[in-house]
Amino acid sequence: MQPERIIPLTEKSSYAAAGVDIAEGQRALDLMKQAVAATYTPEVLSETGSFGGLYDALSLFSSTSHPVLVASTDGVGTKTKVAARLDRWDTIGHDIVNHCIDDILVQGARPLFFLDYVATARLDAVQIAAIVGGAAEACRAAGCVLIGGETAEMPGVYAPGAVDLVGTIVGVVDHSQLITGETIQPGDAILALPAAGLHTNGFTLARAVLDDLDWESPHPDLGQSIGDALLAIHPSYLEPVQTLRAAGVDLRGLAHITGGGVYDNLPRILPAGLGASIERGAWPEPPIFDLIRQRGKIDSREMFHVFNMGLGMLAVVPPADVPTAQSALGSDVYLVGHIVDNQGKVEIQNLGQDS
Amino acid sequence: MQPERIIPLTEKSSYAAAGVDIAEGQRALDLMKQAVAATYTPEVLSETGSFGGLYDALSLFSSTSHPVLVASTDGVGTKTKVAARLDRWDTIGHDIVNHCIDDILVQGARPLFFLDYVATARLDAVQIAAIVGGAAEACRAAGCVLIGGETAEMPGVYAPGAVDLVGTIVGVVDHSQLITGETIQPGDAILALPAAGLHTNGFTLARAVLDDLDWESPHPDLGQSIGDALLAIHPSYLEPVQTLRAAGVDLRGLAHITGGGVYDNLPRILPAGLGASIERGAWPEPPIFDLIRQRGKIDSREMFHVFNMGLGMLAVVPPADVPTAQSALGSDVYLVGHIVDNQGKVEIQNLGQDS
Repeated sequence: MQPERIIPLTEKSSYAAAGVDIAEGQRALDLMKQAVAATYTPEVLSETGSFGGLYDALSLFSSTSHPVLVASTDGVGTKTKVAARLDRWDTIGHDIVNHCIDDILVQGARPLFFLDYVATARLDAVQIAAIVGGAAEACRAAGCVLIGGETAEMPGVYAPGAVDLVGTIVGVVDHSQLITGETIQPGDAILALPAAGLHTNGFTLARAVLDDLDWESPHPDLGQSIGDALLAIHPSYLEPVQTLRAAGVDLRGLAHITGGGVYDNLPRILPAGLGASIERGAWPEPPIFDLIRQRGKIDSREMFHVFNMGLGMLAVVPPADVPTAQSALGSDVYLVGHIVDNQGKVEIQNLGQDS
Repeated sequence: MQPERIIPLTEKSSYAAAGVDIAEGQRALDLMKQAVAATYTPEVLSETGSFGGLYDALSLFSSTSHPVLVASTDGVGTKTKVAARLDRWDTIGHDIVNHCIDDILVQGARPLFFLDYVATARLDAVQIAAIVGGAAEACRAAGCVLIGGETAEMPGVYAPGAVDLVGTIVGVVDHSQLITGETIQPGDAILALPAAGLHTNGFTLARAVLDDLDWESPHPDLGQSIGDALLAIHPSYLEPVQTLRAAGVDLRGLAHITGGGVYDNLPRILPAGLGASIERGAWPEPPIFDLIRQRGKIDSREMFHVFNMGLGMLAVVPPADVPTAQSALGSDVYLVGHIVDNQGKVEIQNLGQDS
């Protein structure tokens, strides 16, 4: 039972005539129920009611003495248009869950529960079940409960065939373990956990630039199709970050590189006056970015402003902790730069190497 | 500062050419900041970071010994199309917040924090600020923190001029105070807290039926314009429910009458085998419903399946507590029916009075 997913429709014929289909909504519900139930933990008090999802907050004290809740909401943006073009609906659920996990991870939080919202002009039960099923799988992998959700059919609001997918996550961190960036100093090392692709940002531009190409056949520059490269799943960085913590690495700051790229996201965690110097070439850039750059004749600075460019999550650590981090994560971490006294600015060295 | 509202765009010209406008997004942010900050309570640890909203969970123990978190997500549906037709954006933010408050109130929870999601094909700063400003006002009135949000511009996903508005709420209730419906018995009284109008359900049908009428001039049957009647704000029932509790009324069950109407929502809280008998005429029905019924030639059973018909929130109480409830709330509560041994069915007496 998913407590609060309500298909806000009736099965009466006159409502159906107005463009809304309750039976299809109910079919979607039945298809996704099992996947959702698989995310449940003992903290879910699902026997007690069905309007809202219930989560036992006493459990917060199992791992924390001063729990702080961390909440975030976000959407996958027009990555849904890529899914629609390819008619592949099993990946974007993973994207939104992992995106949300990473957003609260930067403050040190582990996820407790997640709620999804899927809306479209016309419900397709199989499509919705694939989306929510993907979200449920990603939740389960992270020990996060899919505690609620909503599926909405809104003819006239959504373009025909278009879907929006939004997620909200609530996590917890002990007050003493909050990661704030406050202790970041000049000279600190910047480590990157690599990105799988565009993640959930920049799709409006990417789609515009790549629109007239074949998205389904393997592309020589990519080693896969454009469609596969674009749909590459946004990874959860929960496990590598936990590994770094367990290894004793002092995580002074974490930055999730989303919309606005490294230029806009890294400064959000830096103490006043500090900036960063990033060495382009120190990490692998997924080749889809260069294809977008070439096709769109986009300059490199713009590329780093719109896309993550392979920098999924940045961790700022003392230089002395770099070897520990590298031996803990091996090739899953790259030393990409360092903190400098530079008025909040991010400078990328070798920026023009591809232009 | 609203911690996690990120406009996932850049101001670069090539991105703008692809249909996305960061400057307008930033302007919306500036306009709504103050309203959002006004919802903050001491539990908000906003100084510590900006990716996720932080809420101090130790505060949960100020009023509870065994806190249970209650979470819910929902949208306002195509009520946004009504707002668009009238170009009035200050009410739907109230609707989504109050809708969410009422969804968790049925389990006895009071709201802690709320996150909004507003998406459209093209950002209009004034419009977005009016929507989020309304949400902030409703939050503040309920002592609920607007702790995060997301504004997304998605050309191609949303129809031109269309907006979607989604909210997620997290509240808390002490485990001993959870309202579950378990103790409901045959003979219990059903009280109604009256609805202001359609609230957030049935707008696809209502719009279809009323489309060719004038929505702006006063309508003789309504005492107001159709537009005003349709946009009537979804009330929060937090205060009247708290009043009933404070007066010592035994709230055995609460049902928020949303999509599916009384037929689908009341049975969700009834113990197996029990049903309900509702006396039509015992409460005032906002006249907009009869206008919809007449114009759409919709039968009454269908009306009660799609719309709340004036029953905003139902409370099931022991018959002996009815006078207490009535003296506590006066004309803000109506005795509308009682619980019967009736296989989970809701029967409405005098159903055909208008057909």
